[in-house]
Amino acid sequence: MNIILLSGGSGTRLWPLSNEVRSKQFLKIFKAEDGTYESMIQRMYRMIKDVDPQATVTIATSQNQVASIHNQLGSDVKISIEPCRRDTFPAIALATSFLVKNGVSEDDVVVVCPVDPYVNRDYFECLKRLSDEAKSGASKLTLMGIEPTFPSPKYGYIIPETAEEVATVREFKEKPDTETARGYIRQGALWNGGIFAYRLKYVLDIAKTRFHTDRYDELFAHYGELEKISFDYAVVERESSIRVIRFHGEWKDLGTWNTLPDAMSDVTSGNSTAVECENTHVINELSIPLIAMGIRNAVVVATPDGILVADKDTSSKLKGYAAEVALRPMYEERLWGEYKVLDYQVDANGENSLTKELIIHAGKHLSYQSHSSRSEIWTVANGEGEFLLNGEIRRVSRGDSMHIREGEKHAIRAITELRIIEVQIGHELVEEDIVRYPYTWAD
Amino acid sequence: MNIILLSGGSGTRLWPLSNEVRSKQFLKIFKAEDGTYESMIQRMYRMIKDVDPQATVTIATSQNQVASIHNQLGSDVKISIEPCRRDTFPAIALATSFLVKNGVSEDDVVVVCPVDPYVNRDYFECLKRLSDEAKSGASKLTLMGIEPTFPSPKYGYIIPETAEEVATVREFKEKPDTETARGYIRQGALWNGGIFAYRLKYVLDIAKTRFHTDRYDELFAHYGELEKISFDYAVVERESSIRVIRFHGEWKDLGTWNTLPDAMSDVTSGNSTAVECENTHVINELSIPLIAMGIRNAVVVATPDGILVADKDTSSKLKGYAAEVALRPMYEERLWGEYKVLDYQVDANGENSLTKELIIHAGKHLSYQSHSSRSEIWTVANGEGEFLLNGEIRRVSRGDSMHIREGEKHAIRAITELRIIEVQIGHELVEEDIVRYPYTWAD
Repeated sequence: MNIILLSGGSGTRLWPLSNEVRSKQFLKIFKAEDGTYESMIQRMYRMIKDVDPQATVTIATSQNQVASIHNQLGSDVKISIEPCRRDTFPAIALATSFLVKNGVSEDDVVVVCPVDPYVNRDYFECLKRLSDEAKSGASKLTLMGIEPTFPSPKYGYIIPETAEEVATVREFKEKPDTETARGYIRQGALWNGGIFAYRLKYVLDIAKTRFHTDRYDELFAHYGELEKISFDYAVVERESSIRVIRFHGEWKDLGTWNTLPDAMSDVTSGNSTAVECENTHVINELSIPLIAMGIRNAVVVATPDGILVADKDTSSKLKGYAAEVALRPMYEERLWGEYKVLDYQVDANGENSLTKELIIHAGKHLSYQSHSSRSEIWTVANGEGEFLLNGEIRRVSRGDSMHIREGEKHAIRAITELRIIEVQIGHELVEEDIVRYPYTWAD
Repeated sequence: MNIILLSGGSGTRLWPLSNEVRSKQFLKIFKAEDGTYESMIQRMYRMIKDVDPQATVTIATSQNQVASIHNQLGSDVKISIEPCRRDTFPAIALATSFLVKNGVSEDDVVVVCPVDPYVNRDYFECLKRLSDEAKSGASKLTLMGIEPTFPSPKYGYIIPETAEEVATVREFKEKPDTETARGYIRQGALWNGGIFAYRLKYVLDIAKTRFHTDRYDELFAHYGELEKISFDYAVVERESSIRVIRFHGEWKDLGTWNTLPDAMSDVTSGNSTAVECENTHVINELSIPLIAMGIRNAVVVATPDGILVADKDTSSKLKGYAAEVALRPMYEERLWGEYKVLDYQVDANGENSLTKELIIHAGKHLSYQSHSSRSEIWTVANGEGEFLLNGEIRRVSRGDSMHIREGEKHAIRAITELRIIEVQIGHELVEEDIVRYPYTWAD
């Protein structure tokens, strides 16, 4: 089975756990059987491999998720990187051509599904049925229709011709109001979860018509110029040969604080204590302790990005407020490890300082770089490494400090895991103030 | 008027705002008329001086509050320092002898009151009446009796002979249950708020009998050996000549999260947003943003010591839980300024590191000191100062870093306000690892 997992953008609906660079699919909130925690994307990937060890999985996403994906799924996973955001049809066309470039036949089929619903093994069995159905050629496009558990106004609806397990689609309906949704359900409508299967050639032909090419290299090179158009509009609405397979297992959308906690294995995580709380979930990613007492039906979430204390029902209004208070990202995973902002001070004269903790994994290194508007003072709090400054290498370890002035080229490689406290000083302290240089570390 | 303000110990009932070294009386939560914020002790001190500009105020407290008191009340305020904790009678006897040492006549009177109730101008007028009544000599001890507003089980009760404004005391009652309290109130009982006035000589004589001295120097020198005994037990219960003055103004005990918010001027403070909350107070002393949404009847408090989210009624159970999670103090006021712990890491090998932000006020300096079990790396994030290392002084400013190795003598003086990021590295990172040396800074 070939699968394209759509790993969508971050948002503020799960602030402060998600931020500009950290999306909900990377949050480690599910306890696996072995007691370790895994994220949505890890859980999804593991379950696909459980059901079909031969499955080839391609993740369609943007550049800023690449580090998180490799950190969580290993370096072997295939990623179709969207150079910029262009809506779902260009993304799916690009990923489809990426499969061809990686040796999948145009006559083979692929299943496309989002990375973020919470599902169980039966979902993946259903994906296989989608794949098989698409292979049979009975229709051009095969969708999964999820049996609704309530008249939700949040989803589009698929109305099939019959109530059979596999049926042709009579009609698609946009997100309705609750009353209309009730009517649809009486007619036998199913939720449209954006899960579908097709023969590669089918989408490549549409890409060729619309973009004048179906070749990966060309689609990638001109991605920024491709028309912004959704898969629904470019494909689904223009196709008469569509079938739907019913899915009646568990399928949860975990995109808000009202729904996410239902899927969390633990009521508290991190350095947290909950006393006489009811239906309240506490997540603490800070090192300071958190106590919740006598709180009902709420989520309490503390991360380097901020603190949220919200009634679950009210939390749907979070988006606007979170966008307003959101700072620069205070925590980020990188290919070399991760960083956390400890302190950020802006003074009236623009004399800013930013204190960060960097964790660099053993064997990894920061790129060789310089900054034009800031100096940096690094102190090794733990570990050993090689520090490169203006072409000269020296060994550093716990307790050493390094002074990097504006414009000086620098890098560091971790021999054992390095923990560094970095103080940035300058007028403009932004991630974008960076020039990178090539450098080859000796073995 | 002579006043002794008893500035009691810290506690965990207001965690995480209060900690081992930071007590509720120093929290700046009241908005003064000029829009600035003041603490309980500042408000109390200011109001005493408003009512009686000639009042001599002595604060009886322990050593660890001295820096906070001088920072908040200036360097002129008189402090009777208890070398260790010995209960209320030794503390009051010491403070009384301290007044004599400072030139107050033994025949003069003093009013003793706690620093932490929330009161208004009429309270201070009543203190004056207490002082005048004690001067009259009608009784040995004059108490304030607060007219109860409800049958509280939290206070002791005073039962006066008559309902007159000034009456002799018939009986004292220990903290009762609510039902018994109701009965006391029917008998005309008053709350005992621990506010009383006496002629200095009266208490000094009791001290002489009990401790064989009434001299300040001797009481101070042998303080640790003095009997641990309460003022109630040593004085009040043995005295038949006691009068009580009724007080019917506002008097609020702000010692718990259930009562403190009533006196706070603002519903939110710091970088906080409250959306659709009811009867909910939010205090955020962290630099990251905090959002509270749809929360009712709760307090949300975030400080470097921890985060509390508590239903106000449930918060009375906080004490035990807070004591359990309490870390080393993460924020402390010092004579030279203040510090905040940004990060604290303990690893399995005992290779610890602690990152602090120090603010040193212009003109102030750290004492000349060394540490046997840690090295420190300082980075100047802002300001200018003079750095003293092993007897040599050099000028430092924004962007400079200093490496202080184990055993090296060091100090720093702020020319303009200094903000320093300090990384401590060592096996034992405690405030007690310090040796101080004399040093005289040149002008």
